[in-house]
Order: sequence, then C-alpha cells, then structure tokens
Amino acid sequence: MISSSTNAQIKYLVKLQEKGSVRREDKVFVCEGKKMFLEVLNYARKSIIKAYFSESFFKSWQKEAESKELLDISYEIVSDSVLKEVSKTVTPQGVLAIVRQPEYTLDDMIEGTPKKDVKSEKKVRLLLLENLRDPGNLGTILRTAEGAGITGVILSRESVDVFNPKVIRSTMGAIYRVPFFYAPDFYDLLCTLKEQEIKIFAAHLAGSVEYDAIKYPDRTAIMIGNEANGLTSKACELAAGKIRIPMEGSVESLNAAVAAALLMYEVYRQGKR
Amino acid sequence: MISSSTNAQIKYLVKLQEKGSVRREDKVFVCEGKKMFLEVLNYARKSIIKAYFSESFFKSWQKEAESKELLDISYEIVSDSVLKEVSKTVTPQGVLAIVRQPEYTLDDMIEGTPKKDVKSEKKVRLLLLENLRDPGNLGTILRTAEGAGITGVILSRESVDVFNPKVIRSTMGAIYRVPFFYAPDFYDLLCTLKEQEIKIFAAHLAGSVEYDAIKYPDRTAIMIGNEANGLTSKACELAAGKIRIPMEGSVESLNAAVAAALLMYEVYRQGKR
Repeated sequence: MISSSTNAQIKYLVKLQEKGSVRREDKVFVCEGKKMFLEVLNYARKSIIKAYFSESFFKSWQKEAESKELLDISYEIVSDSVLKEVSKTVTPQGVLAIVRQPEYTLDDMIEGTPKKDVKSEKKVRLLLLENLRDPGNLGTILRTAEGAGITGVILSRESVDVFNPKVIRSTMGAIYRVPFFYAPDFYDLLCTLKEQEIKIFAAHLAGSVEYDAIKYPDRTAIMIGNEANGLTSKACELAAGKIRIPMEGSVESLNAAVAAALLMYEVYRQGKR
Repeated sequence: MISSSTNAQIKYLVKLQEKGSVRREDKVFVCEGKKMFLEVLNYARKSIIKAYFSESFFKSWQKEAESKELLDISYEIVSDSVLKEVSKTVTPQGVLAIVRQPEYTLDDMIEGTPKKDVKSEKKVRLLLLENLRDPGNLGTILRTAEGAGITGVILSRESVDVFNPKVIRSTMGAIYRVPFFYAPDFYDLLCTLKEQEIKIFAAHLAGSVEYDAIKYPDRTAIMIGNEANGLTSKACELAAGKIRIPMEGSVESLNAAVAAALLMYEVYRQGKR
C-alpha cells in the first residue's frame, strides 16, 4: 500500500493532472471517480495503465469487482489520506486511473466512422471547435456530441486540452466514445473538409440564416468559436454559410456548449426524419 | 479609500458572497466584474446599494463613466490588494457591487408577464426546476431562458441559490431580466399551474414522447430535475406528459443546462412558426 504522498507514482499522478505537457508527452491521462472509472473499464479496459484505489473504496468495492471480473488490471492500494490529496474533486471517490489517450486520425472522421450506434452510417457529422477555452464547456460538448450522433470533433490546437481533468469529468464517459482530433492547422483542415465536400456551417451572432431554416446535407460540419470572441473571420470565410440562433430579450449570446447543443441536435433531428 | 480587509464593509462583502442566509435576510446580492456591473447599471441601476471599485479600475474607467453619467450611484474606492482579496474570480476586474435582489411573484409569471421583448405577449412559457444543484448550470439556464423567451423560471426551494456568485456570473446579466420565483411548496405550485391550465411537460429519460413530437400549447411549462437523479416521481405525476430527448451512443443523459436549452428552444421554435 502507498501511504506517502512523496511516493513517485503519487507524484506522477499529480503531475499528470496538472500538466498538459506531461500528458501529451506520455500520451496518457488521469480519470477520476467511480463512474468515470467504470466507463473506462467498460469501453477501454485495455487502455488502463494503472488504477489507484483508496483503502476504503477498495474494501467497499472489491467483492463486486471480483464477482464481475473487473480486477484483471494493474492496480495499487493507496491510503485514504494520500488519495484525497491527489484528488482534483471536492468529494473524492477513492479511485483514479492512468489511462492511455485514445488516438484518432482525420480519416477516421471524414470517412464517417462506422459506429454501430449511429443509425445512418454514411453520414458525416462533424463538430469543429475553434479556440474553445473552458474545460467544462468542452466536456459538456463532447457529452452532447455523443448524444447527437456526431461522428467526430475537430479542435484547433489553441483549444483547451481534452485530457484536462475538468474536461474528462464533464464528458461523463463520452471521452472514450466520441472521436476527436486536434488539427495541426485548423484553417488548412477546413480547406480539406471543403475538398471532401463536407459543408461547414459557422455559428455566428450575425449569421444570415436561422439554424433551423437550413437543410443540412449528409456531410455536415458545425463550427463553434471561442467563448468570448466567437469564430475568427478567417474561419467564417471558409464556411459554406453563417447560421444564427435567434434570441429574445437582451441576451448577447448563448453559452458555447448550449449553442453547440442546439445546432448539433438540429442536424440530428433532421437526420432522423 | 478602503485599504484594510478588516473594514466592516469589506467583511460584509465577503459574507454576502459566501452565505446564502445573509443574502436572504438582507435581500441583497453581490455582482462582480465590469460586464455584470454594466448590466446592473443598465437594467437595474436603482437596485445598486453600493459599488466598490479598485483604485486602478476606477482610474481607467472614471472618465468614461462620468461622460456617460454612470456615477450617480453610491460607491467607494478600495485598494487593489483588498479588492483582490474579496474577489471570487480568478482574474478580478476591480469592481463589485451590492445589489438589491429583484423580487417576483407567481402572478408575474402566470399572467404571462408582458415583456416588451417577447414577441407574443399572451404566451406563458415557464421553466420549472426541481432541486437543481449546480450554480453554473442554473446561471447558464437563466441565460438561455432569456434567449428562448421564457416568461418565468420557478425553482424548488432545495435548488441552488440564484444569488450565489457563481450563478450570477454565468447568467451574463440575465439575472436582471428573467423573472424567477422560489416555490414555498413546489408540488402545491405544480397543482396551481395545472388549475391555471398551464401544461407541464416533464423532461424524463424514460419519457414516452420525443420532445420535438409534441405541439406545445400557448401556456406551457417545461420541467427539469436534479443533475444526478432527474425529476422525482412526485413531480412527474403532476405533469401532463413526460418528454424525452433522443440520444445516440451510450450517453446516459445530457447535462441539465443542455437538456433545458433543447427543450426551451423547441418550444420557442414552434412559437415562431
């Protein structure tokens, strides 16, 4: 059992949670909490490099875990107090795991990944995020994207790191199931999508068409910009059109995750008809 | 100028931000940041009890403020370091204000408040929140509610305090413009709404009808439950119907603010046709 917070593994866990550069270099991330851990066990068990359980969590869970054969992974028991120190959450649940980062290519997305759960396999439905910065927003967007049958999420490199612990938490497991890709050059990538006959619709406060007045084609990409500044004009110029979500009152804009949800679900809704 | 954090006014500012009970008793709240402060100046100037500016914020803003006649309020200058201490944000912007809480009655909402910005004045479009707990979610929901032309938001008493600083921040100003009401007894209130011929639609993972298959009447209420547990069966029983947002993949549920947005915007969309 690890009972000191100066233990090398514990220090590594802390570093992985705090430093995007270390996560990138080692191609791993940390998932925390029982729910998220069970999701990895379920969807990406082979990606688990090592799990860390607090003494009391392990005691309460061991029987169930053994009966369900969930313990065929590398793991370590950690004293409750040390695990609490490592935790990034207000109410630590006693489990953290180091997990290999899933990797996707652009081709995975453009081809219209044949995901068994998406009813129509030939559709390409992308979500493009330019300089999205808030981890909670990104997590919520990935969670919604899975629900709306998005086949891939493409992010500009300046966007928040998808492996940030706050993002991971708010994905509620979608991180293991929605393909995503950081574009080395976002604008080059937009050009590639255009060449591939994918129509890009840019969410814009000054869009000329309301989002539900468009008939979205089978190869559609929705593009959302930064929380404070929206999309750059460079990105907008590469889009097939700018779409607008109508708003009553004096509200200036909607939250980025809300706007993304409304647009993704409109595309999904139309696809179901 | 206030330059000590033991100053009584400063201590009161801290208390107001941390304690819901003090806010309730004194019927005030604290708004922080330039944007939010300008929104109060714009929409509820008479509600400002006192504003606190950091020295450097005041220096940078004084000219503009005087030319726009924005300084006809009670205010105080505070040293930069003290204001930073009081701030609840990561990057304090140098302005906080104590503001009188807006108060609404149930009648304001049921009558279909004649808000000049809502195109169709006779409609009642309520959002009912049962035990919503996350401040960020509530703020985002109020912001979206304004955009979707919601005429009032009704919350169960167990829901998060709308005057919590995190809620205020994420409303982006909608707090001053969307009427809201904490129901002394949420279930009694649902009965009252029914008597008033307002149809309540409960968002439920096991809803029998998809949310976009309903024709929402002119007097509609959308009901959303707690983030972890959804709506109680008691609340659902008082609804006219349970509606469901379809989801692909293995996602268990959507974020509460996202679900609320999709439903509010569907009602709004139908109303515009």
